[in-house]
Amino acid sequence: MSKEKISKQDFSRRDLLSGSAKAATLAGLGSATVAAGAAGLVGGSALTPRQAKAAEAGKAFVGPGDLDEYYGFWSSGQSGEVRIYGVPSMRELIRIPVFNRCSATGWGLTNESRKILTEGLLPGTKEFLSTRGGVWLNGDAHHPHMSFTDGTYDGRFLFVNDKANTRVARIRCDVMKCDKIIEIPNAADIHGMRPQKYPRTGYVFANGEHRVPIPNDGMILDEPDKYHSVFTAIDGDAMTVAWQVIVDGNLDNCDADYQGLYAFSTCYNSEEGVTLAEMTANEQDWVVIFDIKRIEAAVKNGDLKTIGGVPVVDGRHGSKFTRYIPISTSPHGCNTAPDGRHVMIAGKLSPTVSVMDVTLLPDLFDDKIKPRDCIVAEPELGLGPLHTAFDGEGNAFTTLFLDSQVCKWNIDKAVRAFKGEKVDPIVEKIDVHYQPGHNHTSMGETKEADGKWLVSLNKFSKDRFINVGPLKPENDQLIDISGDSMALVHDGASFAEPHDCIIVKTSVVNPRAIWDRNDPMWAEARAWAEKDGVDLEEAEQVIRDGNKVRVYMYSIAPTFSLEKFTVKQGDEVTVFITNMDDVGDLTHGFTLANYGIAMEIPAQATVSVSFTADRPGVHWFYCQWFCHALHMEMRGRMLVEPRAT
Amino acid sequence: MSKEKISKQDFSRRDLLSGSAKAATLAGLGSATVAAGAAGLVGGSALTPRQAKAAEAGKAFVGPGDLDEYYGFWSSGQSGEVRIYGVPSMRELIRIPVFNRCSATGWGLTNESRKILTEGLLPGTKEFLSTRGGVWLNGDAHHPHMSFTDGTYDGRFLFVNDKANTRVARIRCDVMKCDKIIEIPNAADIHGMRPQKYPRTGYVFANGEHRVPIPNDGMILDEPDKYHSVFTAIDGDAMTVAWQVIVDGNLDNCDADYQGLYAFSTCYNSEEGVTLAEMTANEQDWVVIFDIKRIEAAVKNGDLKTIGGVPVVDGRHGSKFTRYIPISTSPHGCNTAPDGRHVMIAGKLSPTVSVMDVTLLPDLFDDKIKPRDCIVAEPELGLGPLHTAFDGEGNAFTTLFLDSQVCKWNIDKAVRAFKGEKVDPIVEKIDVHYQPGHNHTSMGETKEADGKWLVSLNKFSKDRFINVGPLKPENDQLIDISGDSMALVHDGASFAEPHDCIIVKTSVVNPRAIWDRNDPMWAEARAWAEKDGVDLEEAEQVIRDGNKVRVYMYSIAPTFSLEKFTVKQGDEVTVFITNMDDVGDLTHGFTLANYGIAMEIPAQATVSVSFTADRPGVHWFYCQWFCHALHMEMRGRMLVEPRAT
Repeated sequence: MSKEKISKQDFSRRDLLSGSAKAATLAGLGSATVAAGAAGLVGGSALTPRQAKAAEAGKAFVGPGDLDEYYGFWSSGQSGEVRIYGVPSMRELIRIPVFNRCSATGWGLTNESRKILTEGLLPGTKEFLSTRGGVWLNGDAHHPHMSFTDGTYDGRFLFVNDKANTRVARIRCDVMKCDKIIEIPNAADIHGMRPQKYPRTGYVFANGEHRVPIPNDGMILDEPDKYHSVFTAIDGDAMTVAWQVIVDGNLDNCDADYQGLYAFSTCYNSEEGVTLAEMTANEQDWVVIFDIKRIEAAVKNGDLKTIGGVPVVDGRHGSKFTRYIPISTSPHGCNTAPDGRHVMIAGKLSPTVSVMDVTLLPDLFDDKIKPRDCIVAEPELGLGPLHTAFDGEGNAFTTLFLDSQVCKWNIDKAVRAFKGEKVDPIVEKIDVHYQPGHNHTSMGETKEADGKWLVSLNKFSKDRFINVGPLKPENDQLIDISGDSMALVHDGASFAEPHDCIIVKTSVVNPRAIWDRNDPMWAEARAWAEKDGVDLEEAEQVIRDGNKVRVYMYSIAPTFSLEKFTVKQGDEVTVFITNMDDVGDLTHGFTLANYGIAMEIPAQATVSVSFTADRPGVHWFYCQWFCHALHMEMRGRMLVEPRAT
Repeated sequence: MSKEKISKQDFSRRDLLSGSAKAATLAGLGSATVAAGAAGLVGGSALTPRQAKAAEAGKAFVGPGDLDEYYGFWSSGQSGEVRIYGVPSMRELIRIPVFNRCSATGWGLTNESRKILTEGLLPGTKEFLSTRGGVWLNGDAHHPHMSFTDGTYDGRFLFVNDKANTRVARIRCDVMKCDKIIEIPNAADIHGMRPQKYPRTGYVFANGEHRVPIPNDGMILDEPDKYHSVFTAIDGDAMTVAWQVIVDGNLDNCDADYQGLYAFSTCYNSEEGVTLAEMTANEQDWVVIFDIKRIEAAVKNGDLKTIGGVPVVDGRHGSKFTRYIPISTSPHGCNTAPDGRHVMIAGKLSPTVSVMDVTLLPDLFDDKIKPRDCIVAEPELGLGPLHTAFDGEGNAFTTLFLDSQVCKWNIDKAVRAFKGEKVDPIVEKIDVHYQPGHNHTSMGETKEADGKWLVSLNKFSKDRFINVGPLKPENDQLIDISGDSMALVHDGASFAEPHDCIIVKTSVVNPRAIWDRNDPMWAEARAWAEKDGVDLEEAEQVIRDGNKVRVYMYSIAPTFSLEKFTVKQGDEVTVFITNMDDVGDLTHGFTLANYGIAMEIPAQATVSVSFTADRPGVHWFYCQWFCHALHMEMRGRMLVEPRAT
């Protein structure tokens, strides 16, 4: 809709961002002087300084009613959800509850969400949670990545890991809701996670970060040399563990190649220590390379152990399944370039990024070359390099945590410099505010990287927003990388913590407007209704079965089909509601007041919730999703007859 | 910082928004033609259409590093939190968990938050929740309002109601955290809520919306004529119920006067029915007026009943404490104008707003005039008038839900028209997208209304953002009201549901950068430490007391003072952590992996959490709030010795 082509006559920000204006922008100075210098005319009237500045950042401006050109999928770190942004407006459009408990949608409360939250848990965890309400209420969502087909996003799924409670979740992109969550056995605290890029996803690779005993049942405690960390390949279609690899060191971030042959994980703590001093003692750690074909063959041939119910191979030093390439201490980011050849291993405690050439890996696995022979460049970029993004034109953008900068550098020049040529790979640095972690470019982790936008996810905002108290937002900054010079165009505040993101062109994603009545999401509700002889779409029944009561209703704005229902104190009640409105954006809700019940009922969906009616009296239920001029009147009563005393 | 004065030479949006441009904007059309028409020059270069549009909306543009001029405090409806926005950038800066369970901060998990969430609950609710984890996990946060002194905001507190579980919460504006939550007895499902404006807050007035039996213990069930609704005055300093009034009808929205004499609530369902047909049968409902001085005198003189532990007076028809002014069916919004005289009662199902003159209320209570004599204007504005905001220059802005418009109208002209003068009070209408509920102007509910910005909180966004699936965002639109014509300058997506907001100039609010070590928030932790002989600020102790274990540590980036601690399976463990970093924006976190524990530890604060260590083995804890280049290494181990079998 607003994908207007920029013609040659159009204003170039490169022209504007020259001289003092550019210097001021790069230094992060206030804009009054810049804007004043840029002030000109619109429609015959002089621009105010603010208007001039708005025009200056105009490429990122999405006016009222105009549409964004990219979806941004943001993890939320310890908030446990996934967020959809619009890019370049940087507006947060919607939240997708995943690992968190959502007051609005009833995620963690409804029967449908609790099935998703519990069916992939390990038996020990189910038992642990049985005295804690049955579901985890928190998560630490780090890395959101879309499923790939042939090296680019295919719009089917998003995957995201939970570092806090060792899980990986999947989100269906047709409805933008989570449909599967699995707990990863043997591993502790999933950190890095990336989907297979080729031929398709396929596998979702997941790093168990922390080393723990296997099994972690208390028989081994303060014996760190008996701890292990585990790399996992998940079948992204079935959402089951395909295989695991035990490795040396703590697994950090990972990525996959564009050939479908290898996956890679950075490792820190090669010392396998348990204190800060121990973990950072060595001068070098490593990146570990996984040979997918060899591992698949071993799994097929039974060359494995079954541990915790899944196939596990031993990939520690000396294994045929892995190779360990030494990298300066505590490498962190791991990003495959769109050229399909280079993988960037960021130094974190070293000022360098090590560039690995995947075309050399077959020789490494065949022991024809040494591990460090696979490193074809190692440019020194600045202090605290963490993650690298790409523009698809041979340039890389690396966040520098300690320098609070993004460094743009040229991959080819870095390779040439590594060979001894006198060439400087660094193209430009730009200040960000402050302390960047992950970064990401539009389509940048696919072969279709388009070099338009870069987002820098900064861990501190300090003085960049009005003071909201001791807990400050973080700062997602948008940088225009389409010109020769990078230009900072937007500061976006965000709640803890925007750990990572991807930026996907809108044409890839095509969500439904309303649900399909045949959707598998409420298969169990459908089975109950069939058993009870109820038509969900015309339901207004109350079925009693001992002390179990099933209440079926439908909603059409502004009414529920039942204006009241009566139960007995102590009854185990399940309420099934079907939203029979069939127009887009007509979500209903069901809040049962003073019972802690609230849930979203999307158009054409069925949602259910179960609870014990142990509070006698008159309890109103109401629609909490504004639906109609008589929305406030959309309600009814649950009458709970007191237990005879 | 960026409060630049607009000089006379500056560009006027009125000039730009003339002719076809204005028409196109009002019709909500795409911008290409508008922008093309407005295209001009900046710094000698032609503007792209997008840049021209950016300049057009430039008054709302807050560039990278520039600061907003207003705090926006947003309720979040069924999300249960409060959000702080920056205005005019409309960026969501931070979330304040209140009625929800927060995965990131541990709100609902930490001992400090659970004290706040539970200490104001009624005994029956505590018992009900005892089998449900002890705290509510959801809320429906409707109306966020700041404390007043002398008719304007004083920056001390925010108050917000929970319709779902009948609560009112308070947020401390010095730290932007909730410090008190109380459940309101006798009432069901608090809806309208406003603070006393004069002489100060003082009272927080809260409407019990739904009619229920008192007590609601199941003795009365399907006998709606025995149901009641209750109006509550809360002491905002003590956060206790000062007094209650039983009324006729369902209480909807409320407001207070600028004289400290009266409060007002709209009521629908004068029929006191329980079905939609019954509730909307009458042609008229009413606004009920509460005489604060008479009620205070009755409470002082004991002219009351004590019900549910609080003083209750009977304010039903015929009472000396109240008067009922008839209004066309189902009035909704209730907004006192900054002129200190007029109160706007929106018609909802009637196209009118009824204007009440508070200077006539003494005569009404003295029975010198009739109720309808207090209505001094009743302009017909359009379909579905819901809420009214003000510019401080005698104009009112009313949302029209069904028409999807905001209507600007002149109060004085409406009064004159009501007297028979041939004058049209309607100044202008602007389309909003779509179906607006609440609206609010900058400082608009105070005597300092400044007429700069209007926010329209629209319940549907439909096609205004890229498609994110069946659940769409709502749409908070920003409208520039500083000129003669209203101008829509921003569409802001928001997650369910931005129910209401206020817009407060930044000078009123001055939050702390870090916590005071003497803050009462962790008084209990301080008491425990004293009893255990532990200095919280240098703590690295594990105190065992039978099967109760108290673990004390402090944090300084990138370490916790304990790299490990050992407990026995089944121990009841409390972990106290003090963040000894003393610079702004240096929050730490404590996540205990695979135990469901995660919490925020702000700079200079102490936070604690209790749990049963019923899972043996090695469990890593880590800092989840990015704090340092070695943040990932900031961690330790909890070793849980298995129970002897």
